[in-house]
Amino acid sequence: MTEADLQGSDGHGVIRLPQYLKRLRAGGINKQPNIRVICERAATAVVDGDNGMGHLVVSRAVDIAISKARETGVAWVSTRYSNHAGPASLYARRPLQHDMLGLYFAVGNANHLPPWGGMEMLLSTNPIAAGIPAGEEPPVVLDMATTVTAYGKVKAKAKRGEQMPVGWMIDRQGQPLLDPNRAGEGFLLPIGGHKGYGLALIVGLLAGTLGGAAMGRDVVDFNADHVSVTNTGQAILVIDLAAFGDPGHFKDHVDRLVRDIRSSERLPGVERIWLPGEQSLQKRQRYSEVGIPISAALMDELNMLARELGIDPLMAEVSA
Amino acid sequence: MTEADLQGSDGHGVIRLPQYLKRLRAGGINKQPNIRVICERAATAVVDGDNGMGHLVVSRAVDIAISKARETGVAWVSTRYSNHAGPASLYARRPLQHDMLGLYFAVGNANHLPPWGGMEMLLSTNPIAAGIPAGEEPPVVLDMATTVTAYGKVKAKAKRGEQMPVGWMIDRQGQPLLDPNRAGEGFLLPIGGHKGYGLALIVGLLAGTLGGAAMGRDVVDFNADHVSVTNTGQAILVIDLAAFGDPGHFKDHVDRLVRDIRSSERLPGVERIWLPGEQSLQKRQRYSEVGIPISAALMDELNMLARELGIDPLMAEVSA
Repeated sequence: MTEADLQGSDGHGVIRLPQYLKRLRAGGINKQPNIRVICERAATAVVDGDNGMGHLVVSRAVDIAISKARETGVAWVSTRYSNHAGPASLYARRPLQHDMLGLYFAVGNANHLPPWGGMEMLLSTNPIAAGIPAGEEPPVVLDMATTVTAYGKVKAKAKRGEQMPVGWMIDRQGQPLLDPNRAGEGFLLPIGGHKGYGLALIVGLLAGTLGGAAMGRDVVDFNADHVSVTNTGQAILVIDLAAFGDPGHFKDHVDRLVRDIRSSERLPGVERIWLPGEQSLQKRQRYSEVGIPISAALMDELNMLARELGIDPLMAEVSA
Repeated sequence: MTEADLQGSDGHGVIRLPQYLKRLRAGGINKQPNIRVICERAATAVVDGDNGMGHLVVSRAVDIAISKARETGVAWVSTRYSNHAGPASLYARRPLQHDMLGLYFAVGNANHLPPWGGMEMLLSTNPIAAGIPAGEEPPVVLDMATTVTAYGKVKAKAKRGEQMPVGWMIDRQGQPLLDPNRAGEGFLLPIGGHKGYGLALIVGLLAGTLGGAAMGRDVVDFNADHVSVTNTGQAILVIDLAAFGDPGHFKDHVDRLVRDIRSSERLPGVERIWLPGEQSLQKRQRYSEVGIPISAALMDELNMLARELGIDPLMAEVSA
């Protein structure tokens, strides 16, 4: 959660702690899971998370994928009986330090997206993340929901008492929904219309169905239900650059591409062209120095939880 | 090309033949390529296409990936010195008959997309395709450009003498561009704004840079240049369902999901909820019976080419 807040993924940061705690206290998450590989081949594995915290389950899956990719060149590891694991980019970035690249797919923990033209929310925001190593430049790190916005950002808007922009959500009459506190009455919109619907479906099949995890009507809404086993699925693909040639050569090409993009001609009024992951990196650098901003409302909630649990509260001075 | 037209991918069908012929006659494509694996591991390979027709190069890459995935569970094969290969879905579908799923990525053969906020077309439409096996239901087959539309569809609009809808392209002043004959003066828009830009970039890095193929400023515009080697790159990922459990069980789950989606509640005015690939399948079934419609202009062009080459012309009765 701290890693999430540090890179500005505030929808997946400590804001989620109250919800995780509710689930832990209600018995909806296994505090002492036996996370294990239940089937594997040279380049694949299925990790059964035994309903443990998703962060732990996916971390294990990524470690296994890195180890396998070192031998076979590419590896794919799926999880089942996992849980919400925070920002996708944290896991896609993990292979970078090994001169490997990562692709990550996940089934969201509540369905907010109907099929294109539909009303029933059979799909989630199902994110895709990618981490691509560079040389002297920062790595290219993409982390995107297949919806126009992620549900975590809707929740963050609600926490901060802000309205949503038009285009994030519609209600069941097809009208724009702007109040994040009414999010339960509507659904998210996919990127590129039918394309985003297709992408969300494929990601769900890859991250959920393939590994034996929940998808479609089987997905448990973990915002509403703190007890049922979610059987959340994620999938990580790791590629060892050395299997395709000299990793230094690859990284030089990425550097050149990054510089070509950054220095390319801009539309009138645009101050800077960003590469995916650059803004998160800047936040990480700034927050590492000055601390992570936390809203007063969230701070109060965390301090109340701390009191309940007999833990020292956070310092009020940290509050933004 | 026939397979493309048959499934309604008319932007990649026989409409491309005049362009391929120009390139073949100008020496821009190697008619007798030595397509070979230049490096490999248990689950990966790089196929050097020796500047042959892309259709041949990618077919070889898919065959290798299927063969490797049977052993290791997953395989990734990249191409370099390939060429334009037609619709992405043709290759993503190939593993289906082996109870395997396919993901396909390609670098487009001309840059039409600037980075988000930029003016220089450093990226192409870089498509993603996925083929997921089902049981009794048709497979789920996604084939999408990371732009709102594919450039092939712009060319098809021009051939048919139709205008483009708002949202497909903008000009260098940021204004909507509607005339497909002026396509060279503008650029395509990515899906979901900055998200589509990020996705196009990642697909380009995976399909181009990873395998040692062209990306960014190195991409040759094969609409304008019929001689230079394009060094086109594609990548195919194949997963053997049996490495993750019982393929029959997986396919039952896909069937159930497909039926849940198809029969789910619709927005007012929507007649049917489609699964990705269903419309292509319907066209394939219909055109297999009644033939493929071809515009009079394209028919004339093909017949003129046939005369030039001393080949029998197409029958005029086929013309639509």
